[in-house]
This record gives sequence, structure tokens and C-alpha cells, in this order.
Amino acid sequence: MPLVHNSRVQPEWIDYNGHMSEAFYVLIFGHATDAFLDAIGLDAETRSQAKVSAYTVEAHIRYVREVQEGEAVEVQTQLVGHDAKRAHLFHTMARAADGTVVATEEILVLHVDTQAGGTAPFQPVAANALEQLQKRHDRLPRPQDVARAITMPSRSVTG
Amino acid sequence: MPLVHNSRVQPEWIDYNGHMSEAFYVLIFGHATDAFLDAIGLDAETRSQAKVSAYTVEAHIRYVREVQEGEAVEVQTQLVGHDAKRAHLFHTMARAADGTVVATEEILVLHVDTQAGGTAPFQPVAANALEQLQKRHDRLPRPQDVARAITMPSRSVTG
Repeated sequence: MPLVHNSRVQPEWIDYNGHMSEAFYVLIFGHATDAFLDAIGLDAETRSQAKVSAYTVEAHIRYVREVQEGEAVEVQTQLVGHDAKRAHLFHTMARAADGTVVATEEILVLHVDTQAGGTAPFQPVAANALEQLQKRHDRLPRPQDVARAITMPSRSVTG
Repeated sequence: MPLVHNSRVQPEWIDYNGHMSEAFYVLIFGHATDAFLDAIGLDAETRSQAKVSAYTVEAHIRYVREVQEGEAVEVQTQLVGHDAKRAHLFHTMARAADGTVVATEEILVLHVDTQAGGTAPFQPVAANALEQLQKRHDRLPRPQDVARAITMPSRSVTG
């Protein structure tokens, strides 16, 4: 089973088009990343005490469907890969009501030593949790859009 | 010359790490996309009257440097390509003080008919503006990270 994070679309996340603005999909995905960190034992208190954190350094988002104010959404998170200092995640956001996928976000997260100001290996508790989670998530189908790039086929502007 | 959009980092955009949260880079980039739409004659009033809009359907972000509360940032926008219904943009966000790049965002924008609820060709004014802008921006160096994908080389977790 992927990890699950639930959210509800707040009024201040709606833009002039009358639906959730692109930044706030990323805010919800960020909360799902926080939930992932909690799940591997890197909750806020542990990060603060150990003087470590996790920074998203790269993200690829697909905005698939509009989302309205007040809608409940559910983010499922799959650990695609990891190494000593990095985690590669794939978030899928769906409407809680009917499971329609509304967006996906693939991210690369770096583990950092906030005191030294550089990357640092995950400490044993998190590293072990990642190993266990990886074993479980390796059984899930690999998300179709991992390593996706934005491309626009060349064609006539009248095409 | 690329298009330029200026912003300043607001207190409510700062997260528990003490620097700008990933969602708010995207908020600033979204404002730069709005400025781009203004520049091709698709300002809010025109969109509302013509019942058209422009939706970002895909984004690739690199978070390069931390940004602090109150910092002034400048986004330069390059039109990488376009066709009858789509624009492919590359935003580069830099600290206004010293020009240090703090983030980049590549996006694909779809032109939509909000009444019909589907994609629609740009109307002549916008299409002509895109053609003119494309000619100018084709003289700029192509951004290095266009069509970039997230990849994590396989290696040992102790690597």
C-alpha cells in the first residue's frame, strides 16, 4: 500500500479561474512529503533535534483536472527509489469522492545536515525505514510518468 | 530580452525550515506566467471578455537555492516554443540583489475556451504576438534544462 495523505481545498487556494491555483497543488503535495518524512521517522521534532532536514530539489508536476473549493483530495505516495542521501517519490492526488486523478508530482528529496549546510546520509533509523518501505513499494506498479520530460512536438503554428 | 517579473518574498511564504516553501516559488512563477499572458495581449480583461484562459498542464521545477523572507526576486521568462494552442515557457528566478539563480520552472500552457470547456486556438492578436515574441526569443540561448527529467542513478544505498 502506498502512504496516504488527506486534504481539503481551502477558499484561499482558489484563483481567478475559479479553481485551485497551481501553487496550492504543490502545497498539498508538500504536506504529503511531510507525511512521508513522518512515516520514515523523520518527523519535525526528530529533524529539529538531529539538526537535519529534507529539501525538495526537483519536481515534475502534471495538472490533470481542475479542483474546486471545498473538495476533499487524497494523495497516495510511492517511494520510487532511494540511496544514502536521497529519496525519489511519486505523489498521486485524486478526488476523495470518486478517485479521479487530478494531479501527479514526482520529486527528488535530499537529506541535509542543517548545521553543516550540506547533504548528509540518512541516520540509521530513517535508512532502515526507507529499506523496509522500498521493499513494500517495489511490489507496486512503477508509476507511468516517472522520469517524464516536457516535450512539445514540432509542428506548424496553424496545426 | 526575456520578459521580466519582479516579486518580494512575503512572511506567509516561509515554512518551518525558515525559508520560502516550495509552493510559493510556484506562486511567483504563476505570476510571471500571468505577466507573459499580459505581454501577448491575453490580460485578465481580455480573457474574461473572450471567455478564454490559459492553463498550466505540466511543470518541471528545480529548487536551486534557499530564499529568505523579504528578499526581492526577479523572474525572466523565455518563450521556448509554441503552436496554435500551446506555449512552452522557461522561467528563471534570481535574487534581484546579485542575480544568483534560485529556481527554474519549465511549463507547458494550454489555451482553452472556458465556455466550451476544451482547448482552442489562440485568437489572432495573441497568435501574432506569440509569433513576434518567438522571433525575438529564438535569438536567446536555449535554456540548458529544457526537457529535463528527474533521474536517480542506481547505486548502493551505502554509496
